[in-house]
Amino acid sequence: METREEVMFFDTDAGGVVHNIAYLRMIETNRTRLAAKMGMEIKSMADGPVIPVVARTEVDYKRPGKLGDWITIRGRLEEVARARFWCSFEMIRESDGDLLVTARQMLALLTTPGGRAARIPRDWLTRWG
Amino acid sequence: METREEVMFFDTDAGGVVHNIAYLRMIETNRTRLAAKMGMEIKSMADGPVIPVVARTEVDYKRPGKLGDWITIRGRLEEVARARFWCSFEMIRESDGDLLVTARQMLALLTTPGGRAARIPRDWLTRWG
Amino acid sequence: METREEVMFFDTDAGGVVHNIAYLRMIETNRTRLAAKMGMEIKSMADGPVIPVVARTEVDYKRPGKLGDWITIRGRLEEVARARFWCSFEMIRESDGDLLVTARQMLALLTTPGGRAARIPRDWLTRWG
Amino acid sequence: METREEVMFFDTDAGGVVHNIAYLRMIETNRTRLAAKMGMEIKSMADGPVIPVVARTEVDYKRPGKLGDWITIRGRLEEVARARFWCSFEMIRESDGDLLVTARQMLALLTTPGGRAARIPRDWLTRWG
Repeated sequence: METREEVMFFDTDAGGVVHNIAYLRMIETNRTRLAAKMGMEIKSMADGPVIPVVARTEVDYKRPGKLGDWITIRGRLEEVARARFWCSFEMIRESDGDLLVTARQMLALLTTPGGRAARIPRDWLTRWG
Repeated sequence: METREEVMFFDTDAGGVVHNIAYLRMIETNRTRLAAKMGMEIKSMADGPVIPVVARTEVDYKRPGKLGDWITIRGRLEEVARARFWCSFEMIRESDGDLLVTARQMLALLTTPGGRAARIPRDWLTRWG
Repeated sequence: METREEVMFFDTDAGGVVHNIAYLRMIETNRTRLAAKMGMEIKSMADGPVIPVVARTEVDYKRPGKLGDWITIRGRLEEVARARFWCSFEMIRESDGDLLVTARQMLALLTTPGGRAARIPRDWLTRWG
Repeated sequence: METREEVMFFDTDAGGVVHNIAYLRMIETNRTRLAAKMGMEIKSMADGPVIPVVARTEVDYKRPGKLGDWITIRGRLEEVARARFWCSFEMIRESDGDLLVTARQMLALLTTPGGRAARIPRDWLTRWG
């Protein structure tokens, strides 16, 4: 899944660069669209039967993004276990191709209502990875 | 109600000053504590019987806050109507007493569940204003 | 200027609706693109010679946005004075055409560096209004 | 370093729990105060001679925080290398002692201006760890 973001003032801080928290918002937008492509529409997510929940986030900040940069975010399903799956993300500045951020998130699939761990369908990785 | 905030990097933008949206977060914290003092605890708010909902916000940005500033936020109940009430806020930089921001918010009191407008108790202004 | 946003989890709160602060972020994105159309590119804004600064915000919350809603934001230059101008915004839910939020922002044009008020070009309103 | 936060509406999402990004803001506040104790005051940070920059973040979300929870954040200097250091954080719900989140952040010390990696003082860990 590929999404794009233009760095706004609210994404930056007094250091003159993109604030580390802002990247997480951009990642969530990408992950939400990835999930929609996989059949988990945000609109109906609360209705169940399952909802993906972030269990772990890892982010590496490699180069600073700047005001007005256009950033391409590339997200993909990287790994699938019984009850967990990993998504990975790359954030690239379009003007020079610099890799700004890499990130991984581990998610669990919980039933709604109930909140018990649901089993990840076996074919996810071949279909979406 | 008086609350205090120290301006963090995440509150600022590449212009080197506090971002205009960050003040709204500081105001909400103040307003939440004001509501608690008035008997509307955030913890039990979703359980009803009433929940205050912001219907209008007005903010005047007078001077720029800076990284590391300590800001005092003073909030009070300003005006009460049948089904609406106004809170007003002042945000003052502690180091020099400068008034950075003034704001007003109009809130309605809605029943939960149901979401119908609830009547504001008559004595609110004398008790909390 | 017309921009679009899909309501993400990070835009909502435990009340199940879009949080009042999230609309301000959507408005800023719209306003930034409006400014770019008017010749004030965000990328070069810090270099001057002028930078628009928000002096006042007014927001009316009319109906609650929900998770997954697509919202169209329409922003325009509404009024121009000597050293100030007003932008106005409408936020409309695409699925049913409901008007969720209206807002106005007054901005000043400051010189950079220096931070003195700059005069607004006379033809702005005829060109961009 | 110990800081406290009360979970506000803006910290939560439509899932009824604290949004995963909100914890990062609470962690930054804790880390900023930890840095101040170590002699790096946020107020003068931009003036140098060094500024700590987040290079990696790891967050494990263990249990969901809820609206109105009081959370204690405990941050400490965990490990020091030549040009990098790690801080670790625990976030505990005060009402029941539940561990909600653990996190680690790797930071580099950069010179300002210049942005070159600065060497971490040898005695940091004995003094602050």
